[in-house]
Amino acid sequence: MKKSICIALASALLGAAALPAAAKGPVVNHAISEAEVLAAQQAWCKALVDISTTATASGPVAAKALAEKVIDAAYGYQMGAVLFKPTLTTAPQTFRTTREGALAYFVGGNPAYPKDTGFALKGWTKCEIANAAVFITGDSANTMGNVAFTDKTGKVTTVDKTWTFVKDDAGKLRIVVHHSSLPFSGN
Amino acid sequence: MKKSICIALASALLGAAALPAAAKGPVVNHAISEAEVLAAQQAWCKALVDISTTATASGPVAAKALAEKVIDAAYGYQMGAVLFKPTLTTAPQTFRTTREGALAYFVGGNPAYPKDTGFALKGWTKCEIANAAVFITGDSANTMGNVAFTDKTGKVTTVDKTWTFVKDDAGKLRIVVHHSSLPFSGN
Amino acid sequence: MKKSICIALASALLGAAALPAAAKGPVVNHAISEAEVLAAQQAWCKALVDISTTATASGPVAAKALAEKVIDAAYGYQMGAVLFKPTLTTAPQTFRTTREGALAYFVGGNPAYPKDTGFALKGWTKCEIANAAVFITGDSANTMGNVAFTDKTGKVTTVDKTWTFVKDDAGKLRIVVHHSSLPFSGN
Amino acid sequence: MKKSICIALASALLGAAALPAAAKGPVVNHAISEAEVLAAQQAWCKALVDISTTATASGPVAAKALAEKVIDAAYGYQMGAVLFKPTLTTAPQTFRTTREGALAYFVGGNPAYPKDTGFALKGWTKCEIANAAVFITGDSANTMGNVAFTDKTGKVTTVDKTWTFVKDDAGKLRIVVHHSSLPFSGN
Repeated sequence: MKKSICIALASALLGAAALPAAAKGPVVNHAISEAEVLAAQQAWCKALVDISTTATASGPVAAKALAEKVIDAAYGYQMGAVLFKPTLTTAPQTFRTTREGALAYFVGGNPAYPKDTGFALKGWTKCEIANAAVFITGDSANTMGNVAFTDKTGKVTTVDKTWTFVKDDAGKLRIVVHHSSLPFSGN
Repeated sequence: MKKSICIALASALLGAAALPAAAKGPVVNHAISEAEVLAAQQAWCKALVDISTTATASGPVAAKALAEKVIDAAYGYQMGAVLFKPTLTTAPQTFRTTREGALAYFVGGNPAYPKDTGFALKGWTKCEIANAAVFITGDSANTMGNVAFTDKTGKVTTVDKTWTFVKDDAGKLRIVVHHSSLPFSGN
Repeated sequence: MKKSICIALASALLGAAALPAAAKGPVVNHAISEAEVLAAQQAWCKALVDISTTATASGPVAAKALAEKVIDAAYGYQMGAVLFKPTLTTAPQTFRTTREGALAYFVGGNPAYPKDTGFALKGWTKCEIANAAVFITGDSANTMGNVAFTDKTGKVTTVDKTWTFVKDDAGKLRIVVHHSSLPFSGN
Repeated sequence: MKKSICIALASALLGAAALPAAAKGPVVNHAISEAEVLAAQQAWCKALVDISTTATASGPVAAKALAEKVIDAAYGYQMGAVLFKPTLTTAPQTFRTTREGALAYFVGGNPAYPKDTGFALKGWTKCEIANAAVFITGDSANTMGNVAFTDKTGKVTTVDKTWTFVKDDAGKLRIVVHHSSLPFSGN
């Protein structure tokens, strides 16, 4: 009833040719918000620990199946390629622009990537993010900072990490750039 | 002090090689928010009424000077062109892709646009927006709906209007598409 | 063989620690090109004539089925909403932000939209586009100009038309804004 | 003359109410092309060698002045922050989100960054890029691959490098993300 009164008042104020008393229409928003970025980062950390936990609890087959689900949900390989430089890869297989290369890195076991032992299988129990800065361009969002991984023994490995996310048609953020590196040793 | 405690706790939890206790870094956001879009629409309405008021109070020279300021602040002509189809223009001068053409439409007085009598000089006292929908693509934001203009006599003219905004380097929204039309008469 | 020679030469030039002789990697491009925009416009025109031709040759059921395919392929209703102001609609059904409203406009026959007689059923034989300007923002592309429709009798109807396209995950342009209006009569 | 004939023919074909014989209008394009990305990468390489050459030929003051020009022209610090992880920085000054931090990295001499000796002063004579992949999102463009730096003695240092570029209002690409790291030693 309040609404009709309001509309009636508005009509009175506007006169006969006034605006149709339209309810507010739909808002479609494909821009990326800071909150969405932070949530996508946390989801990546949680997924890594989940794969580690699954590997310990249920073995490598289950861990691989989960890793495939994580890659398909969190990365943009279906968009054509992902710019992925994992922490521990070496030439000539440094860059993992294909889904197969990413999967090999996370869970190993692929003879085409003989040096991969499975980063996600290292028994991670915690993964924490400290952003140095975030830059949202409009249709992409970039983050840079440290990510600290804690293993079963409590040992922490900290890396320098950059991510770029885009939003897919379903409104989900996907990683299209991922550059991770160990800190410079400062010789 | 609360912050140092928090950092100390975090360090304790993470162990010796933990993340540097970095304060949260800068967040640069070039995406367009719904709030920015609604504010830019209101600013357009206010500017139109301001030009009308200035024309009445201070004459056409002052109104033209204000219109130039408004166009330079609210439109994207400096980006190369604006896709502007004003409500009342006709062929072969329907589309006003240049700043000069927009200025002529709003305040008239340009012999190169002989049919322009100055839309902003029509004594508008009120300008109200009712969006039918908003679509934010990431680096652009589109709105469509009605805009109702009230003149001194209380007569209301309602138009169908589409705007597309982009965010410039300074973070300000600018109109790059503006299509306005009188409602179809429905013969 | 040519490639190996080239790589050998490059290695010689670069020395022992040189770049891995990588073939050029994949390029994923979600930006919108001018050529893609022009092609999407032509596809819209062709689709409209096709629906008209189908209506004449095969009747309204076939025309409606084709219109549904066209709307699903060319517009972005599955993204949440489209900002569509067709040429001939009137309040309170001016704006067709839903797929149902668009379909009713093109082929009529929906009692919820009693004034719609089916714009695509008017026997169009030709549809031509003259852009006044194009503005590509990065993730969206906007066009404004005239579209001229020729019917069976040779009569031409020219409208002022604005389109905004985005590129979907599959790389296809989709219309998310469509504002069409008859020219101002200039009374 | 050919044009008038063409227009006359078009008018004849379209009939009296035909499209205005408009010349093709302006096209503003803020999307980023692959060619622009490759050119911006080459410009970065050239600038680095230029600073090195200037340092040798004209001393550190001239090199610093040039580095300032390069940073102001090629990076996006004026947009608020750049996500810059240089190759050789260490905690707690790993990330150089400010212009001052970037300048210190390239030419040293800033007591606030005591470990910086000036990466651009290392006598680079050649800088070559091998992209592993490029991903253009629409309003940003991302590259990942190797960059090989050759010094005076012919020694080559190869790094893993990620860049993200955006296009500013003037149409120039600017680096907003730059993550560089030495290859993992693979111990």
